[in-house]
Amino acid sequence: MNYSIIRRTTGLVLKFEAIFLLLPALTGFFYREREGLIYLALAAAYYAIGFLINLKGDAGTEFYTKEGFISVALVWLVISICGALPFVLCGDIPNYSDALFETVSGFTTTGSSILTDVEALSHASLFWRSFTHWVGGMGVIVFVLAIMPMRKRRMGSQMHMMRAESPGPVVGKLVPKIRDTAKILYLIYFGMTVTEIVLLLIARMPLFDSLCLSFGTAGTGGFGVLGDSIASYPIPQQTIITIFMILFGVNFNAYFFLFLGKDKKEAFRLSEVRWYFAIIAFSILTITINIRGMFDNIYLAFHHAAFQVGSIITTTGYATADFDLWPQYSRCLLVMIMFCGACAGSTGGGIKVSRIVILVKAGLQEIHHYVHPRSITAVRMDNKPVERDTVRSVVMYVGVYVVIFFASVLLVTIFDGDQSLETIFTSVAATFNNIGPGLSAVGPTANFAHFSLASKYILMFDMLAGRLELYPMLLLFYPYTWRK
Amino acid sequence: MNYSIIRRTTGLVLKFEAIFLLLPALTGFFYREREGLIYLALAAAYYAIGFLINLKGDAGTEFYTKEGFISVALVWLVISICGALPFVLCGDIPNYSDALFETVSGFTTTGSSILTDVEALSHASLFWRSFTHWVGGMGVIVFVLAIMPMRKRRMGSQMHMMRAESPGPVVGKLVPKIRDTAKILYLIYFGMTVTEIVLLLIARMPLFDSLCLSFGTAGTGGFGVLGDSIASYPIPQQTIITIFMILFGVNFNAYFFLFLGKDKKEAFRLSEVRWYFAIIAFSILTITINIRGMFDNIYLAFHHAAFQVGSIITTTGYATADFDLWPQYSRCLLVMIMFCGACAGSTGGGIKVSRIVILVKAGLQEIHHYVHPRSITAVRMDNKPVERDTVRSVVMYVGVYVVIFFASVLLVTIFDGDQSLETIFTSVAATFNNIGPGLSAVGPTANFAHFSLASKYILMFDMLAGRLELYPMLLLFYPYTWRK
Repeated sequence: MNYSIIRRTTGLVLKFEAIFLLLPALTGFFYREREGLIYLALAAAYYAIGFLINLKGDAGTEFYTKEGFISVALVWLVISICGALPFVLCGDIPNYSDALFETVSGFTTTGSSILTDVEALSHASLFWRSFTHWVGGMGVIVFVLAIMPMRKRRMGSQMHMMRAESPGPVVGKLVPKIRDTAKILYLIYFGMTVTEIVLLLIARMPLFDSLCLSFGTAGTGGFGVLGDSIASYPIPQQTIITIFMILFGVNFNAYFFLFLGKDKKEAFRLSEVRWYFAIIAFSILTITINIRGMFDNIYLAFHHAAFQVGSIITTTGYATADFDLWPQYSRCLLVMIMFCGACAGSTGGGIKVSRIVILVKAGLQEIHHYVHPRSITAVRMDNKPVERDTVRSVVMYVGVYVVIFFASVLLVTIFDGDQSLETIFTSVAATFNNIGPGLSAVGPTANFAHFSLASKYILMFDMLAGRLELYPMLLLFYPYTWRK
Repeated sequence: MNYSIIRRTTGLVLKFEAIFLLLPALTGFFYREREGLIYLALAAAYYAIGFLINLKGDAGTEFYTKEGFISVALVWLVISICGALPFVLCGDIPNYSDALFETVSGFTTTGSSILTDVEALSHASLFWRSFTHWVGGMGVIVFVLAIMPMRKRRMGSQMHMMRAESPGPVVGKLVPKIRDTAKILYLIYFGMTVTEIVLLLIARMPLFDSLCLSFGTAGTGGFGVLGDSIASYPIPQQTIITIFMILFGVNFNAYFFLFLGKDKKEAFRLSEVRWYFAIIAFSILTITINIRGMFDNIYLAFHHAAFQVGSIITTTGYATADFDLWPQYSRCLLVMIMFCGACAGSTGGGIKVSRIVILVKAGLQEIHHYVHPRSITAVRMDNKPVERDTVRSVVMYVGVYVVIFFASVLLVTIFDGDQSLETIFTSVAATFNNIGPGLSAVGPTANFAHFSLASKYILMFDMLAGRLELYPMLLLFYPYTWRK
């Protein structure tokens, strides 16, 4: 294990977190809250610690997948542990474990909250809470890669870390250099976020709300600033958020082709994106039919169906209606698209549309094989055959995913046996897929405060495992990783 | 498609069903019920039809996996459709769809019932209901293979059909000839069933109950003859059933090695069987701890935990206690071992222990691969490497399984939106895994009568798909199967 590069990365990220903390500090000063000072003091402290950690030069250049995955897992643990502290020091979330839950939920863009009264928070903490979504959405390492000049001999390590942090079965380098890819990704990300903020301002949303909600949309997080999530904003503002949630769930490769590619039509040929929109259209349509009786007119039913489908499939988790009260078909379909998730290479969580598509195609091929045993056909996507190894690892991913999912559910039943199975099942589904709200006692109008301490830590593990695509977190707890 | 051999097999099986129907006819005569005559009349009619179908000689010898799978799927449909008729004609289950549900549930050894009052049935129908479990447990085609002399050129077809009907990822031929393997399997099956009947008689259970309950245990079905399943029988009789349920869930290869093998120790070296017992021990132990407060003493808690774990993991579905009222951990674990199921090559359903073990091992290997990318290690079982193709097909099996499962859940929510998600989820789990009872409104004290007609047919499909290991039923509805 190459510890020096892991140390170096951690120190670097801590310095970046210090810089990020200046934003809530500024917010605090703007609203004349004493909390601003706490954020400022912590920013200084973290920068100093990061600087000290990085003082010692690094020795080894050996850097493999293992180091990449462990670095990423540790970095995410460190930013969460440090990022939770201001909530406690400000008195906004007095219990440290609860603050950690909120911060992990923030960085992993889950959006599950232990807060019973969101509106009681200081503006500084509300801002920080939403900003963690924005940082976590595209990935903190990707950010570091985009900003920091790195020596050439570290090219390999960059790829390994980016692979661990970016969602999806295959990480495509958009351009030959990793650093340029990271820059382009953040450029698109930043541009789209600003566009949403501006549009929300035009639709007369207050600046503070526009900023926080756009961070939550961009990172597909889901933390809001009001107690009823998005329900009390006017319809036009909700519509802007609906559209941007769905846009942030699209594979960013599509935007690259659209804005910077030579052949703009390539964006529309990506089969994952087409499947993504097909699933969304099917879900909105059938849910609209299913819930039309609950609303004054079909347009309103369509509006809420579209918002909720967009919110859940992109794993954002905002709510305009209490979908826990919707008919079973709608509730069940929403739980299913929780697992489906958004596109690979987007900021959304879940299993990812491309994995589902590859899985279904491989399944159909297996059936076809029984009819024509001699036919040798590869699973195809985007008119190219998918490598057998990719298919295998996709299928294994889903297998490992299912095992962690059910193990988590079983563990939570031990510590929270008084909750219904529906609550427990959907609380794990909502955290593991980085959604936010589930059904019943963790529905859109409820929160995660009532869970036991042990269950909260299990759910935190699930959030991190879900965001980092399982293996980094698993490797952290795998004994062989630490053997010489 | 070779239709002539499919026709031949179907005709043959119909003749066998006619012979099977003589048993309930005899039961009816013994109890002086007029229903006996109906069973006799149908037996004669079915034999005649089977005879007529088989009159035309068969032409083709071409017989591949496709034909094998389609034959098996059709055979199971035919015996179910024909087997349901006596229930209607006797007036025991006046509605044909309900009778079909009960019969499919019987042959697939599910044990889910639409009856609100089991005890109102005639003895003949009660006997037939339980006997379908016994026939379905080891498989009707396996039975035909064991009994019928077949010409040599049909050897290939036998293997294909046996593979389609026998549970598990790999079908081992115990002895070189398929027919001898089928004979040995039925010999063990018959011997163990008789042993259970004798032991129950010694424990002073009435003969009729001993027969019916032993058929239900042997086939891991779950239909009883009393309204409260097994709850009102004395503890010693319940213990005998517990032990035999668990024994019938063991891979029959173990018995072959034990009774007929050269090296008897081989039986204890089968890793699937060891895992099977390890899962049972773990489940009984933790559930005993979890429910100990609900019973007078720890022994009684252990007794009911053992019975229920044995009943669920082997997918039998008998109940001595209303486990729907147990704490969440126990309920949740029971639902999980529903999916796990018994050993391959047993009469039990579910995903099968060997598939779970291969899946978990392949998952661990995937994690290991990230730590040591250059290590090439195969998944090993029984000290032999498992072929890559087997691993792939196991993982795909689970993938296809999950897709069918969730599609079924979603479909049932459309037609039975008034049921809770827990009811719907466990009703599909209980039928697809051939268990019988689920939780909530399909719990051990409830039944499936309240479902809509459409949902009943969806659940029937799930029972058949689960019993026949997915592909035969999928092939039946796969358009390419029927194209020239």
